[in-house]
Amino acid sequence: MSRSKLFKNILQKNSFLCVGLDTDKTKIPAFLLEYEDPIFEFNKRIIDATKDLCVAYKPNIAFYEAEGLEGYKSLQKTIDYIPDDILVIADAKRGDIGNTSERYAKAFFEKLNCGAITVAPYMGVDSVTPFYNYPNKWIILLGLTSNVGSSDFQMIQDKNNQELYKTVLQKASLWGTPDDTMFVVGATHPEKFREIREMLPKHFFLVPGVGAQGGSLAEISKYGMNEEIGLLVNVSRAILYAGTDEEFDIEARVKAMSIQKEMEDLLYASMMGSMDDLGDFNMEELDLDGDVNFDIELD
Amino acid sequence: MSRSKLFKNILQKNSFLCVGLDTDKTKIPAFLLEYEDPIFEFNKRIIDATKDLCVAYKPNIAFYEAEGLEGYKSLQKTIDYIPDDILVIADAKRGDIGNTSERYAKAFFEKLNCGAITVAPYMGVDSVTPFYNYPNKWIILLGLTSNVGSSDFQMIQDKNNQELYKTVLQKASLWGTPDDTMFVVGATHPEKFREIREMLPKHFFLVPGVGAQGGSLAEISKYGMNEEIGLLVNVSRAILYAGTDEEFDIEARVKAMSIQKEMEDLLYASMMGSMDDLGDFNMEELDLDGDVNFDIELD
Repeated sequence: MSRSKLFKNILQKNSFLCVGLDTDKTKIPAFLLEYEDPIFEFNKRIIDATKDLCVAYKPNIAFYEAEGLEGYKSLQKTIDYIPDDILVIADAKRGDIGNTSERYAKAFFEKLNCGAITVAPYMGVDSVTPFYNYPNKWIILLGLTSNVGSSDFQMIQDKNNQELYKTVLQKASLWGTPDDTMFVVGATHPEKFREIREMLPKHFFLVPGVGAQGGSLAEISKYGMNEEIGLLVNVSRAILYAGTDEEFDIEARVKAMSIQKEMEDLLYASMMGSMDDLGDFNMEELDLDGDVNFDIELD
Repeated sequence: MSRSKLFKNILQKNSFLCVGLDTDKTKIPAFLLEYEDPIFEFNKRIIDATKDLCVAYKPNIAFYEAEGLEGYKSLQKTIDYIPDDILVIADAKRGDIGNTSERYAKAFFEKLNCGAITVAPYMGVDSVTPFYNYPNKWIILLGLTSNVGSSDFQMIQDKNNQELYKTVLQKASLWGTPDDTMFVVGATHPEKFREIREMLPKHFFLVPGVGAQGGSLAEISKYGMNEEIGLLVNVSRAILYAGTDEEFDIEARVKAMSIQKEMEDLLYASMMGSMDDLGDFNMEELDLDGDVNFDIELD
């Protein structure tokens, strides 16, 4: 999916929500366990309930691998079920020497037909570049993660007092372009968003950590949005497990809708320039090479 | 597998060889493509040809994922086929927030019954600790990798002039013990082995980069061996693709045997204390809590 198409989708749906499909057999409503493929059955209903409210789905690959062969089948069916105009992000955090990263790229871009994959960049340039051999796909590199352990190494300062994650962002941003590369930036570090956005004015950020992990949507929007919004905010557990019975999909929809409504307000505020740090936002500048003109073309 | 059992296996087989199963459908002999599961057929013959010469097999998970569902089946059959007394290392380089790493641990330790997994530690402590919930399994953390890109981030010096990979080794070595934790140290950095061994005198190192990537077995043995040998040296392509026709397994065996012979000489030299840096090696010290007494008990 192109960057302009993604931006167009955001404007159409008034949403920059990514729904994380961290589907856990021990947490889904019990009645689904009677189906042949409970994980797919759960995902199918979540997708049906949320597909007009989000612009991306992010299956967390670990949850499918944990179910072995059956999990792989559930994953494949889930990806096939997601509508073509919604970005599918394989949250896989792969990364290895070149000849191995090539195979991971094949696994996720060819075999599973995902539109994007999360990649761990710490093994360096040759561990990442093989993912760029697939046109029209997104590589989403770990920048600053949302977990407690992110301070163990990502925050280490070098001789110039620069934290490791900034060096990673700077260097890795040269391996691709804002048209094929995003960065993971955890919502649990809102104070870092302003500087990171200054370093990378054009890139989309995939933002985990809102919801169960405690990040604030308003804060990361205030500091992280750019002229093309530039944010995909992921919510997994808070939506998936909003309900526990036969109406879990309705409860998931209610939760997703409340997030989408908040996003709609934030999008409106950013377009109106009423966010403190988005004062220079200008609707005229939104016409991306003629691909998008949200005054007229949105259907 | 316990550390003492692994050490015993090394002494019995006079080998610290790990055979990497980076099985690539486009590189295996053409006659195998007529079998129902060419990848498993290839691996089966490689295992039959090398199982008396190595102490570990290391399936590189990317190569199986690249084949989709069929690849998963080949991987499962391959792992099941490996004799119980040989360590199976899933080369997966996983690592994510805690609740996700838990699922990766389940995938590799429960579903696939591997004895070890390679883990990327850069997301910090909570991304690694879930792997320690499985007794008698090995967590193999990326320390200093063998690829060109290892210099991009792993070599960055902090304010105290310490390279990142050393900080990773120091910190991560406290998350487990030498009985459940190994580190990946690439053979392409022989000059670093001495210092790394000084920092971590007890840990096993999994050493990629000998063979196709150009590392020297003699050099890494000289600087990397400890009293329990402490090295598993991985060779993949040089063994797997030694031959290209129906006798590929014999050629693989010849190659593996030549490596094992070199290892035998290096083991002998280390035991005799004739390596420059292993002068304090003492056979009496090898009786590990009574588990191993290689003068009498080896069968």
